[in-house]
Amino acid sequence: MQRPYNFSAGPATMPAEVLAQAADEMLDWPDASGKRCGMGVMEMSHRGREFQSIYERAEADLRELLAVPANFKILFMQGGGLAENAIVPLNLSALHGGTPQADFVLTGNWSEKSHKEAGRYCDAQVAATGKGDHYTAIPKAAEWLLRDGSSYVHLCTNETINGIEFHTLPDLKALGSKAELVIDFSSHVASRAVDWSKVGLAFGGAQKNLGPAGVTLVVVREDLLGHALPVCPSAFNYKTVADNGSMYNTPPTYAIYMAGLVFQWLKRQGGVAAMEARNIAKAELLYETIDASGFYINGVARAARSRMNVPFFLRNEALNDAFLAGAKAAGLLQLKGHKSVGGMRASIYNAMPLEGVQALVAYMREFERTHG
Amino acid sequence: MQRPYNFSAGPATMPAEVLAQAADEMLDWPDASGKRCGMGVMEMSHRGREFQSIYERAEADLRELLAVPANFKILFMQGGGLAENAIVPLNLSALHGGTPQADFVLTGNWSEKSHKEAGRYCDAQVAATGKGDHYTAIPKAAEWLLRDGSSYVHLCTNETINGIEFHTLPDLKALGSKAELVIDFSSHVASRAVDWSKVGLAFGGAQKNLGPAGVTLVVVREDLLGHALPVCPSAFNYKTVADNGSMYNTPPTYAIYMAGLVFQWLKRQGGVAAMEARNIAKAELLYETIDASGFYINGVARAARSRMNVPFFLRNEALNDAFLAGAKAAGLLQLKGHKSVGGMRASIYNAMPLEGVQALVAYMREFERTHG
Repeated sequence: MQRPYNFSAGPATMPAEVLAQAADEMLDWPDASGKRCGMGVMEMSHRGREFQSIYERAEADLRELLAVPANFKILFMQGGGLAENAIVPLNLSALHGGTPQADFVLTGNWSEKSHKEAGRYCDAQVAATGKGDHYTAIPKAAEWLLRDGSSYVHLCTNETINGIEFHTLPDLKALGSKAELVIDFSSHVASRAVDWSKVGLAFGGAQKNLGPAGVTLVVVREDLLGHALPVCPSAFNYKTVADNGSMYNTPPTYAIYMAGLVFQWLKRQGGVAAMEARNIAKAELLYETIDASGFYINGVARAARSRMNVPFFLRNEALNDAFLAGAKAAGLLQLKGHKSVGGMRASIYNAMPLEGVQALVAYMREFERTHG
Repeated sequence: MQRPYNFSAGPATMPAEVLAQAADEMLDWPDASGKRCGMGVMEMSHRGREFQSIYERAEADLRELLAVPANFKILFMQGGGLAENAIVPLNLSALHGGTPQADFVLTGNWSEKSHKEAGRYCDAQVAATGKGDHYTAIPKAAEWLLRDGSSYVHLCTNETINGIEFHTLPDLKALGSKAELVIDFSSHVASRAVDWSKVGLAFGGAQKNLGPAGVTLVVVREDLLGHALPVCPSAFNYKTVADNGSMYNTPPTYAIYMAGLVFQWLKRQGGVAAMEARNIAKAELLYETIDASGFYINGVARAARSRMNVPFFLRNEALNDAFLAGAKAAGLLQLKGHKSVGGMRASIYNAMPLEGVQALVAYMREFERTHG
């Protein structure tokens, strides 16, 4: 039987074959040769040979998938993006010495939160904001107010609630800035290539494109380590985490294992380039359906539309409940929009197949035909 | 086939029936009525009806199992005990106003680390230490140097590496102190009752007695909330976490689900009182075997011996490798002692059945007979 299509913004749908493998291995994990070890992954010491092999493969696969250069460390941490909102300034805001300082480009809900939290630790200023446009476009990089003393510039490169995505990263050097670029790529990591030459640090919760909630990915250039503020907790000091191979504290072993299975699945799909092509096709189909209709609306500027999160509204919002009930009956789950904006939202991460988007647009067209 | 017995100190063995249920529900979770929802637990929005029901049941079951009074909050957090070493002083060290201040009783590796980390945030002093005795006994409470200005007194009530356990909690009021008692009960939570009348806050990583690594339990009396230092990250501010029902940031949903399955299993076993009786029987069998032998040694004072973690040494350490290899061949896994102390360690948490300890002592006696 076809599983329902699950459009949750995160935690989000996972590939069925990944879940099936995890179920098969739950009580007795087999190594690469197929030999079972008598323990499930949850039961392994994080320092034992078995889990070490799981960890090393996950890290190597991710490095290959994201083409992470050798001078960047890959860390698996805990606390998600909201914890990183504190952890990043605790580690990076004093890079240049002097008063800790960082600049923020606001493009929606998540970058707003990052800016607010950073203010606990540094002089955190807004370099640009799309708030005046109700976060429907990305402020032009040439107009950002970048300060000389800032250690980094923070972007959320995909805003899940507002449905905005950076399709190119700014070149801070070309803009005359000495700051490092920090990106929160939680909700589109591994959906497209990253130009690491422009990036100092990237972080993301796993629960959208990488696996289950409970593990946070940090990719950081080595020379940025070792500048943490004295009040940075040891467990969240990037240098401490890196020096201990992400095992200063007990890592979230099962979540890392699941993310590792997703990395293997991504490689079988053809890697990030293949996923990006599929993600473009999925997003185009959905946006074209919305734009061709007089019934549905998406108000985001075309150049800034997210391939991952597609918020849309019914012009007649009185039909919202009927739309959602019909969708559920058709096997299309979790389409309700975020409470702060209302309407609908289809999150179409890597694990959502084209067939899921085809089923959604077929339902949308039929609903429009019968209710329009 | 009998699964091997896994004596890992954590992440640790889990009940096979819990793992089997998780495997069965991996792709399609059923609610209490057995109705499947079309999603695995990892794929559910943490704010959706399905995960909310999982969360609420887990919290209610834990409250019942540990007999947590109504004026204590139960929080599910991330980062484990080592993160809590910072999070506790960030939240509690300024309870009394004035200079943040706390006292620490050192009984081994974990309380040492807690003391060291707290020094980032407060005047952290040692009230007593067992270091002079190589951490083989617990310093007498009547001799602790408790300071008037300290907000709390920190204990690690079971030290996994040193094999020491507090079998009664001190009554700080009776000792003339106004400080709150903070206990790190990571490695024996749910193995015995807790006298909450003596406790202000208890914390523990789940990966020993409660479930998988990646979720941290905090039980805190409500009136202690709201005193965090300004540098406390929002995601780790107990009041913020409590006010948001542990969903300020996306919680580690799958780890909470697994812990919830363990709670249900504990209830089926007869609850914490039944587990405590079994844990006493298991520990007595193992310690009696060690003490009756001239071949194995455990140097911890009898009154302070841990029921959960039993470190022991072969008098002839040249036999260590042979002991471990034979144990593995006999289906007795992960008995190697912590690298900082060497020797052997059998961790016999709730999920280790009496039969596992019986198998271990049979092997130990046979090894002594053939190698003694």
